[in-house]
Parts: sequence; C-alpha cells; structure tokens
Amino acid sequence: MEPPVSQQIPQEILDIRRSIDNIDGALVFMLAERFRLTGRVGEIKAEVGLPPSDPAREQRQTARLTALAAEAGLDVAFAEAFRSFVTAEVVRHHRHIAEMGTKP
Amino acid sequence: MEPPVSQQIPQEILDIRRSIDNIDGALVFMLAERFRLTGRVGEIKAEVGLPPSDPAREQRQTARLTALAAEAGLDVAFAEAFRSFVTAEVVRHHRHIAEMGTKP
Repeated sequence: MEPPVSQQIPQEILDIRRSIDNIDGALVFMLAERFRLTGRVGEIKAEVGLPPSDPAREQRQTARLTALAAEAGLDVAFAEAFRSFVTAEVVRHHRHIAEMGTKP
Repeated sequence: MEPPVSQQIPQEILDIRRSIDNIDGALVFMLAERFRLTGRVGEIKAEVGLPPSDPAREQRQTARLTALAAEAGLDVAFAEAFRSFVTAEVVRHHRHIAEMGTKP
C-alpha cells in the first residue's frame, strides 16, 4: 500500500538530507576535538587555580563569532545561543575537573 | 602593575585557544551551510504540504549521531542535546516558511 501523498518525501529533500548528514558528521567530530582542547584547558586551569569560566574571553568570543556569523549568513542570535550552549557545557567540565580532579 | 597571579593565563592555554577559535570558525560556517540546506527543505515541505517536523527522521539522526559521537569520543548525551538544540531552530524556521512564505 502506498503511503498517503502528504507523507511522501520528495527526492530533492532526500538528496539534501544526505548533505545535512555529512555536515552533521563533521560537526560531531569537530565538537569532539573542541572538547579535547577545552578538556586540556580545564586541567591547566585546575593546576594553576584559574576559575572555570572567563567572562572576558567569552565576551571576545561573542564579538568574533557574531562577526563570522554575519559573514556566513548565519542568524547572529542563533550563533550566540550556540556559543552559550557549548560554553555552558565546557564550564561544567572545567568545574568537574577542578572539584574531582578528572574529566567528566 | 602586574595582574594578580591567579589571573595570569598560561601560554599553553593561549595557544589552545587559537585552535579552539579556528574550530569555532569552522563550526559557524558549517552551521550556516546546514541552515541554507534546511532552508531549502523548509521551502519544499511548504510547497508539498509536509509537516515542519519529522519525528522518524529525527529518530534516525539521533541513532546515527550517537554512534558517531561514541566513535569521536564526544559525550553522547551532549551530542543528543546539540542535535535537539539545532533541530528546534530548524523546525522553527520550517514553521515560519509554512506560515509566512518566507525564511525567518
């Protein structure tokens, strides 16, 4: 039995989804590498007694990523929400390393 | 006057931050391309009357990204939170296109 017409996915969407899946793969591997790097930052911060978060660094990141987002045609509010989302996880890891001595 | 010792950032952290900044640039441009692709998907969905969200597709994405995250050493709960975060924005765009006829 054929699925109802409204549920048939046009071939063009299926093709685009292949590209989206490739991008998602790249995003996952790049995020993994980013957390490897921030994990090392968390270790050094714990060693030298630096606080888990760095508001001045975050402010510079927001300004830089906002400019890059504008150039890339990415919604700048989304770019900032994304930065904040990732940073919250990073600071959580830094706290964990500082308190427990190990990566979460 | 020297800043207090606890506020001096070790050179290794400054070096790692250069790599993090490069990755963030790549993430922004890749997310921009992803939203270009999902924007086209939203247009086609609006044309053919498909709903903005597709739970079956999301389920497949979660399974795939969870496996990729495990391979990459990325926290799988974070990977799913990330997918959900991006998908929520995509569905918001799809709704906007379906209701307003234009990308947000």
